[in-house]
Amino acid sequence: MRDPKLQAFGQRVRELRKEQGYSQEQFADLAGLDRSYMGHIERGEKNITLLKIYQISHALNLSPKDLF
Amino acid sequence: MRDPKLQAFGQRVRELRKEQGYSQEQFADLAGLDRSYMGHIERGEKNITLLKIYQISHALNLSPKDLF
Repeated sequence: MRDPKLQAFGQRVRELRKEQGYSQEQFADLAGLDRSYMGHIERGEKNITLLKIYQISHALNLSPKDLF
Repeated sequence: MRDPKLQAFGQRVRELRKEQGYSQEQFADLAGLDRSYMGHIERGEKNITLLKIYQISHALNLSPKDLF
């Protein structure tokens, strides 16, 4: 699964995660996601679900709106 | 699958779809989604994926941001 929209989403997540000073591993733990899964998301390799989008935005203390 | 976040998302989609004057059937066809699936989404019964979120926002001529 590779799609420019998934890649753009993953890049945005990576950018926000770095802005908040988390390593990918720290952030995966915080969001309750598997560490390798988090890598796949950031590389746009996963077509993630709505509830995982909420998990990520919640861990970032942001609205899901901010991930797009 | 029932979750307040999925229900809020579905209600928002329904509201925007109605604002644009589409029936659920018309809109499902426009978005390229199965008609019964569209009903499940609007009732918050489906944990949909990122690419389907894009399909819906594209059919509404909106950003995915606007669905949250």
